[in-house]
Amino acid sequence: MSDTTGKTIKCKAAVCWGAGEPLKIEEVDVAPPQANEVRIKILYTGKIMAAILLPEHILRSPSVYKAFATPTSTLAVVRTQRFVDAHKTRLVRYSSLLSQGLFPVILGHEGGGIVESVGEGVTSVKVGDHVIPLYTAECRECKFCKSGKTNLCGKVRATQGKGLMPDNSSRFTINGQPIHHFMGTSTFSQYTVVADVSVVAVNPKAPLDKVCLLGCGITTAWGAVVKQPGIQGSTVAVFGCGAIGLGVIATSSLVKASRVIAVDTNPNKEAWARKFGATDFVNPAKLPEGTRIQDYLVEITDGGLDYTFDCTGNVHVMRSALEACHKGWGVSTVIGVAAAGQEISTRPFQLVTGRTWRGSAFGGVKGRTELPGLVEDYLQGKVKVDEYVTHYRTLADISEGFHDMHVSTILLSLFGQFSFASEQSGDCIRCVVDMA
Amino acid sequence: MSDTTGKTIKCKAAVCWGAGEPLKIEEVDVAPPQANEVRIKILYTGKIMAAILLPEHILRSPSVYKAFATPTSTLAVVRTQRFVDAHKTRLVRYSSLLSQGLFPVILGHEGGGIVESVGEGVTSVKVGDHVIPLYTAECRECKFCKSGKTNLCGKVRATQGKGLMPDNSSRFTINGQPIHHFMGTSTFSQYTVVADVSVVAVNPKAPLDKVCLLGCGITTAWGAVVKQPGIQGSTVAVFGCGAIGLGVIATSSLVKASRVIAVDTNPNKEAWARKFGATDFVNPAKLPEGTRIQDYLVEITDGGLDYTFDCTGNVHVMRSALEACHKGWGVSTVIGVAAAGQEISTRPFQLVTGRTWRGSAFGGVKGRTELPGLVEDYLQGKVKVDEYVTHYRTLADISEGFHDMHVSTILLSLFGQFSFASEQSGDCIRCVVDMA
Repeated sequence: MSDTTGKTIKCKAAVCWGAGEPLKIEEVDVAPPQANEVRIKILYTGKIMAAILLPEHILRSPSVYKAFATPTSTLAVVRTQRFVDAHKTRLVRYSSLLSQGLFPVILGHEGGGIVESVGEGVTSVKVGDHVIPLYTAECRECKFCKSGKTNLCGKVRATQGKGLMPDNSSRFTINGQPIHHFMGTSTFSQYTVVADVSVVAVNPKAPLDKVCLLGCGITTAWGAVVKQPGIQGSTVAVFGCGAIGLGVIATSSLVKASRVIAVDTNPNKEAWARKFGATDFVNPAKLPEGTRIQDYLVEITDGGLDYTFDCTGNVHVMRSALEACHKGWGVSTVIGVAAAGQEISTRPFQLVTGRTWRGSAFGGVKGRTELPGLVEDYLQGKVKVDEYVTHYRTLADISEGFHDMHVSTILLSLFGQFSFASEQSGDCIRCVVDMA
Repeated sequence: MSDTTGKTIKCKAAVCWGAGEPLKIEEVDVAPPQANEVRIKILYTGKIMAAILLPEHILRSPSVYKAFATPTSTLAVVRTQRFVDAHKTRLVRYSSLLSQGLFPVILGHEGGGIVESVGEGVTSVKVGDHVIPLYTAECRECKFCKSGKTNLCGKVRATQGKGLMPDNSSRFTINGQPIHHFMGTSTFSQYTVVADVSVVAVNPKAPLDKVCLLGCGITTAWGAVVKQPGIQGSTVAVFGCGAIGLGVIATSSLVKASRVIAVDTNPNKEAWARKFGATDFVNPAKLPEGTRIQDYLVEITDGGLDYTFDCTGNVHVMRSALEACHKGWGVSTVIGVAAAGQEISTRPFQLVTGRTWRGSAFGGVKGRTELPGLVEDYLQGKVKVDEYVTHYRTLADISEGFHDMHVSTILLSLFGQFSFASEQSGDCIRCVVDMA
């Protein structure tokens, strides 16, 4: 028991006050955990912010679309240095939460920390545990958890979606003003409070500045692959070589896919993809004019891929990923999250002739049950984590740090085809923020 | 061995001479089967014609779209009595084959007959066998057949798609003019020739005027259900109560789904649906204004269906069927075939949150391996067949017979929602043509 138990803690957090505003480091009051809640001292958080920042004029242009998407409903940061500077960047969509205008809010959902105190009735973690907050809860009691078919727990979904704790209130205040929680985690704060179903203890030997990344990206990629037992011995194509894409590549390689084709328009990603286990790299921007990436992949794989993964969030890429699948059995998994309102489409004949279109959130992983094992796998060298961390930042730098997220650029032609182009260095895979 | 062996047979067939023209009964010459080919005396054929006949002005109108679709790339007959008479009906699309202008052609793909003679090397069937032609071949040698994952055999696909036998020629002529085959079956002829991989012998005790329907519709529906082992104990919604939809209902009931909701705008279909095992009937046309069928189904099923099936061919219905699925695990199967060029769409979030979109052709059934057993199931009363046959016709009446195919009418509003309306009696499920 620490001397802060039962007391409000004052600490620093990055607060977003409104749509389009930069994060501001503020002193916040973090109330003690209530029943079935856990207060965590966050030591590290992934830089992924749960937001899509797109300059308005780029969004409106069909010719240039930049996105780096990740597998929850939100989460992506785009920094288009050539077109805009940070101050002109307009927040187009943070998430369904943010689009509802639930400001102010403390973002962040990929963190690692130590339990500072627990509320009444908490038995699953204890003070001092090294923990990872879970934006996908696991209560083990609801219809979803008991189904054995999904990781999408329903227990705290309603309040989490409102930016509140399960009792419909917030633990964060600034001068008495409540600040919203975000995705049930809010890891951009030195202290956060989460529901006990939204946190898991892991082996304290694991460095939290690394395994914080298991709170989202790497786990998402890992689960999306290992939950499909057929991938061993099969061919795989991965669209997009950000952290998620690299994770899918690494895990496909781990489970012994026969061929792993990485697809990205950024030529610098080839080295990254191969480092993570890709056997081939295809740059759609370098195909002969008029050649669609799906047709090219079908050609070089004698009929198409057994499994494909969209790790871009671009709906046109999602279609290509489906159509690159082999007739009769190809399975395409959507991991990337599209911008609000965008839709995927294809001819239904693609499905009737045996392709399957599915998706995955947090990789289908049940966090409380499966993350401890994944951390062990990491400690035993079976699962890469360190390799994703390319940058470190301090909390003071958190807003600026998004500059690190150079991403592939996707050019959508006016004719519905697409190609990628690279103008970013692609040298940032994941940036970890030291919250000290 | 019959006295026609090795000789050309003159017989009657319904020939389609061009797009939009009514079928004409002609005397055709049917050449003897070549190596690995089988000549069949067709006794009965299902009335389903492998065609979509749509009056042009209806096709152009977004407000009225009538379709009765079945699960191959073609196959649907629409007869819109209120808007057009038969002579004004314009053939908009028969199939990829027909849209390529491969006329004249002998249609038909749901038949039953007796082997008249076999070509060199044929071992799988013999003269006198009662057989069902298979528009989905099964060679047991190609990559597809050997995959264990699909029924989409690749052996004769290329020539079948060109309306020819595997040696790139036709067995049908009229006064020396070659007539195209269709779907490798051409059951609208008193004699037809098929590849030996495209035919299966069944128990001769089974009446061919009934089991001819196992050549497509009923098998398609049966397979689409039994190939998904999870349906036992699960909830199911079936969109469209034509023969395919009723087959899905019957099979879902057979495998003990906990609830089978039939969806059709034709109130007359309710009795049909319940007769085949539906526990509920929902008429989308009778929902309160502005209520989408998927939202209504999600509401009455506490979150959505475990399994849904589109048996309409309407892309808007396909979307509804997907979105009526339960978050986390719902699986929607497209069986109906859409009109050429139409596309399905949805928000990718539907997939990311755990729904799966798949399709099925010929129910995923391997015809040579599985149809004999299905016929036995029918003979033992486990699988309904007789119940689908509502009308009989003679070959002379084949063209007129399409009038029997009254179908549900689907109204697409201009605002992207849809509702059904019924103006047809829906009293014809399947019409069988006596080829004598």
